[in-house]
Amino acid sequence: MRTLLISQAFLLIAIFAAAQTERQLNLVPMPSSVQLGTGQLRIDQSFSIVATGARDASLERGQQRFLAQLSQLTGIRFRPRTGGGVAPPTLQIRVEHAREETQKLGEDESYHLAATETWAQLNAATPLGVLHGLQTFLQLVEPTANGFVVPVVNINDQPRFAWRGLLIDVSRHFIPLDVLKRNLDGMAAVKMNVLHFHLSDDQGFRVESKRFPKLQTEGSDGQYYTQSELREFLDYAHDRGIRVLPEFDMPGHSRSWLVAYPELASSPGPYRIEPSDAGPDPVIDPTQEATYKFLDKFVEEMGKLFPDAYFHIGGDEVSGKPWDTNPKIQEFIHAHGMKSNQDLQAYFNQRLLKILEKHHKIMVGWDEVLHPDLPKNVVVQSWRGQQSLAIAARQGYRGLLSFGYYLDLMWPASRHYVVDPMSGDAATLNAEEKARILGGEGCMWSEWVTSEILDSRLWPRSAAIAERLWSPAEVQDVGSMYARLGRISRHLELLGLTHESGKARMLQRMVAAEDISALRMLADVVEPVKDYTRMDGVKGPWDFRAPLNRLVDAARPESDVARRFQDAVQAYLKSGYKDRVAEEQIRTSLAAWRDNDRKVRSLLQQSFLLHDVAPLSEDLSALGDAGLYALDYLGKGEPSPQAWRTQQTELLERAKTPKADLLLMVVAPVQQLVEASARQAPGQ
Amino acid sequence: MRTLLISQAFLLIAIFAAAQTERQLNLVPMPSSVQLGTGQLRIDQSFSIVATGARDASLERGQQRFLAQLSQLTGIRFRPRTGGGVAPPTLQIRVEHAREETQKLGEDESYHLAATETWAQLNAATPLGVLHGLQTFLQLVEPTANGFVVPVVNINDQPRFAWRGLLIDVSRHFIPLDVLKRNLDGMAAVKMNVLHFHLSDDQGFRVESKRFPKLQTEGSDGQYYTQSELREFLDYAHDRGIRVLPEFDMPGHSRSWLVAYPELASSPGPYRIEPSDAGPDPVIDPTQEATYKFLDKFVEEMGKLFPDAYFHIGGDEVSGKPWDTNPKIQEFIHAHGMKSNQDLQAYFNQRLLKILEKHHKIMVGWDEVLHPDLPKNVVVQSWRGQQSLAIAARQGYRGLLSFGYYLDLMWPASRHYVVDPMSGDAATLNAEEKARILGGEGCMWSEWVTSEILDSRLWPRSAAIAERLWSPAEVQDVGSMYARLGRISRHLELLGLTHESGKARMLQRMVAAEDISALRMLADVVEPVKDYTRMDGVKGPWDFRAPLNRLVDAARPESDVARRFQDAVQAYLKSGYKDRVAEEQIRTSLAAWRDNDRKVRSLLQQSFLLHDVAPLSEDLSALGDAGLYALDYLGKGEPSPQAWRTQQTELLERAKTPKADLLLMVVAPVQQLVEASARQAPGQ
Repeated sequence: MRTLLISQAFLLIAIFAAAQTERQLNLVPMPSSVQLGTGQLRIDQSFSIVATGARDASLERGQQRFLAQLSQLTGIRFRPRTGGGVAPPTLQIRVEHAREETQKLGEDESYHLAATETWAQLNAATPLGVLHGLQTFLQLVEPTANGFVVPVVNINDQPRFAWRGLLIDVSRHFIPLDVLKRNLDGMAAVKMNVLHFHLSDDQGFRVESKRFPKLQTEGSDGQYYTQSELREFLDYAHDRGIRVLPEFDMPGHSRSWLVAYPELASSPGPYRIEPSDAGPDPVIDPTQEATYKFLDKFVEEMGKLFPDAYFHIGGDEVSGKPWDTNPKIQEFIHAHGMKSNQDLQAYFNQRLLKILEKHHKIMVGWDEVLHPDLPKNVVVQSWRGQQSLAIAARQGYRGLLSFGYYLDLMWPASRHYVVDPMSGDAATLNAEEKARILGGEGCMWSEWVTSEILDSRLWPRSAAIAERLWSPAEVQDVGSMYARLGRISRHLELLGLTHESGKARMLQRMVAAEDISALRMLADVVEPVKDYTRMDGVKGPWDFRAPLNRLVDAARPESDVARRFQDAVQAYLKSGYKDRVAEEQIRTSLAAWRDNDRKVRSLLQQSFLLHDVAPLSEDLSALGDAGLYALDYLGKGEPSPQAWRTQQTELLERAKTPKADLLLMVVAPVQQLVEASARQAPGQ
Repeated sequence: MRTLLISQAFLLIAIFAAAQTERQLNLVPMPSSVQLGTGQLRIDQSFSIVATGARDASLERGQQRFLAQLSQLTGIRFRPRTGGGVAPPTLQIRVEHAREETQKLGEDESYHLAATETWAQLNAATPLGVLHGLQTFLQLVEPTANGFVVPVVNINDQPRFAWRGLLIDVSRHFIPLDVLKRNLDGMAAVKMNVLHFHLSDDQGFRVESKRFPKLQTEGSDGQYYTQSELREFLDYAHDRGIRVLPEFDMPGHSRSWLVAYPELASSPGPYRIEPSDAGPDPVIDPTQEATYKFLDKFVEEMGKLFPDAYFHIGGDEVSGKPWDTNPKIQEFIHAHGMKSNQDLQAYFNQRLLKILEKHHKIMVGWDEVLHPDLPKNVVVQSWRGQQSLAIAARQGYRGLLSFGYYLDLMWPASRHYVVDPMSGDAATLNAEEKARILGGEGCMWSEWVTSEILDSRLWPRSAAIAERLWSPAEVQDVGSMYARLGRISRHLELLGLTHESGKARMLQRMVAAEDISALRMLADVVEPVKDYTRMDGVKGPWDFRAPLNRLVDAARPESDVARRFQDAVQAYLKSGYKDRVAEEQIRTSLAAWRDNDRKVRSLLQQSFLLHDVAPLSEDLSALGDAGLYALDYLGKGEPSPQAWRTQQTELLERAKTPKADLLLMVVAPVQQLVEASARQAPGQ
């Protein structure tokens, strides 16, 4: 058998030596090495899979899951392979080692996948590599005129960074575990390997503590995970090659702790979980011994529940107010010769670090934990930027980048995509220092996210971050990224994610009418406002319990329709107004938008959720009109009249203003058409 | 408190006495009495619910579920009501009795629901009534210009029939319990109260038996429900007011039994679960004492697992061949003075009945079990028609109608809707006999159904059957039914059913392209072939393991687009070609279809799953063209030329022929346009 495998491997090499690698495969993240051959491996009902080498229960479940997902992608049900006298398997897996009981940072995740016209082979040192290779295989499957196929291909792949994470905040809004599970499937599909579980914050403590049960009963609205639920969830993540990093944010962001145990607070309180600016900033008191007794027991309990070697203590955005105004704390600061609140936080972190070490955990914290007094095995997660990461690395700390990966800011995928942990100041590090940069994490803060919105905010944009962290640094083509992102987006929907279907459902709920196609057309060209604009616009204290059921909540963070329209306008302008295909596409869109306001108006009037959207719809119609006129001028080769352009400029300015927390995303390309129409048409 | 409630009740009566009942509410099934008032009850974040009267754990879970479903319909998260000093509840529930441990046939399911502008009241004798009333409340909620509201209304409601069932066959294709659970939610939403669980058939035995484990291990492909999974599932059904009637089909339809235990067979076998016509017809041998020993233990075990008082033994379509050809069985027939195989089946049923009685179960069987020797407490389920039901009722048997409710035949909802258990021969029964007709059951035989297709085949058509079985016999308006069915269809999608979203997903899977709108347009006007045409078209033995991933599997059983087009054509013709709105609608559809073939062609070429669909698309384009010409003739008021019409007749005949197991559903209305164009336009 061994001889046979080797001779087949030689055959593979021979095939690929001759093959061309012109066509790009629809893979996200792009593997480090792909050779595309000619021909295809057919996937039909006879497909089967066999693993040899090390035996591993998690890998066996992985194979079953692979077959189930292959069924979801094809509608073919595969039968379990029965022994004796059957045809050779379509996919042969060989793995050298079984898995570690607890997944470790930096395990070998590489794999080699080769497909010929008759069979495929997946080799890896560890089951983690196999899991990644199986996901690559699934992404290769596509329907063609000849059936579902995988192209003849030879892939060698391994990650650029060992830590490819996604933070999900379940405190601001509780997210049920089944929703998280399908998003773990999404992470596995794009080879992310760390779920950073932001489990406590001001708005809720989300884990059952048996030692301190008031944490979940008083410190939440009753929505939390029991330990037995979590254990099953952690197994689910482990099976998918995903580590779970728990974060308990302290000493700030800790209102939920202090509602439950006000004796730990730096100010007398009282504390309530409520949407109010009233009451003291919630900060744990680092000067009491009782705090550390509490934390010792707490870390012991949570450290056992979450087996990962790393433990995130938060440490960000600690308000100094409760410390400044508490004489006992001021006295402590002076008595210990500290110069600032920062020193006090460092003291807290050092004490906490000892507790973590006692319970065999490695500390991870946000930028602010960085302090000369801390030992070098602390991992710093940077929300401030590559500079802060570089400073830490030079000092000997390991680091993670999250600056530039905040998914709640509603940036386009392209903007996240260009953020590289090794760029900026980090580019100037030496090799040893660079090795300290472990990777990065996308961050999904959930101020505006509920369980029905989460998928929409994560996908497919997280896949762009996943590619940045997995693929070679040279993989940078944005056009290619978007083409592949569209494909992976549909792939993820087929696997059960709801980023697209959820939007349809939320729109349907807004208005009782049966035909909502006009509303969909409007929804397709808007995006939620960017950065912190939505929060900044909140009048009074932000009410985290308010319904998230408006158009801004249903709208996707990035409008594909607008991006494609922008591309068409670029192509048309670049062609000197000669690209007829692009022109036709532009004209059709503009005309549809122009006519849409008439159709959508009665829908908007029917629902209180849509009243504030009416001006957006009017602007869209006006933009359609303006664009069509501009096209006409360009077509005739005569400059548009100045007076007309002045009018359009007013419209464009108005249309740029956010309304109902939404931005109309086709303003810029229409503006380009209007501006182009001012000039003489070139070369006629 | 009691005085207050009474005086509020008087107030309600006063309001409704003055109210008009013009507008029809979007309820399915339609309640027996509805009085619509003026004004609305607003549903916002302050909504709360309080139950008084009998305490019942299942009802408390029902209230939680109600709030969760109200959240799904509105996007509002409701907080648990906390005691002390809070505002009065929006919805006050009062129930007289707690639930029975096992739900019984004929329990009181009535309820009274009244909503004013400030609060609502739901009263019922039993928690079952409350559950139904809560579903009515949910259906009343809709988004308006003033917020989510429930209209001021007064509803008195109770079912016409006590048995409102849905059969789901999980043998031909295994359906996982989570898929069944969401369909139980669908059943509860339309007040169906029996899941008839067809658990065994030739293609698989789907329940774990601890006494006879080979039933599930040898008698299935490994896909079956464990007893502990089933217990949890039965609790889930019970919580929703749904009885679960297990069916183990015998002595026929029993290949899966005989694979496991060939010693029970009437022929020596061997038996294998395979798509083959080879081998003997599988029938249990009724002449062996060993059979009854086996069944005694089996019924004891299953009778305990399924607590319902009723137990379905199948009994349909027993092949006589294995009995005719087995000398031992022939000898038994003669020795016992039997005249026919029917007598032998009756003997089997009598023996089985004794076993059921021993284990406190009431027998239910299909038409064929009816035999003078059987006692009168057997329930006969008729797949043959009202005549068969009437015969049984006259003889003293209770009965259920399933004839006319076979959802796998792909009939339109309207065709099921007009089937009434009390019509035909049953209409001639006297009151006592009529009382024996317990209700009916929709039947979902799963030859062409997998877990991703099930919802599409059940909904919303099952809701039409549910209305027939719940609402007063006089509720018969098909137009009203369709208007309300559209609304309930969207309602069910919001509650988590996938009958619409599943179609989108399956279409997306067929072709790698991003824009599949042209494919959707085609898919929207086709329906799967009717009755048993698909099965009749299968070449060779039917392979139940073949993939169900073609357009016929994605297409909905009933095309809304085609129905609405048909309605528009009717309106246009009836108006003497003067209805301009209808004409515009017709013209737009026809033009889009005419142009669609050009757009869809490249998609169809790209996927092997769509090759055989090309002729359908060509026909659709030709129909669009023909319809537009006919409209033009009608518009001009001149008859169309005879030669042209002859051509169109050929096209129409061709277009009527099923292709790829699909029917184009817009042929008839286009034909009407063409035929109308032959005549002089009226009154111009």
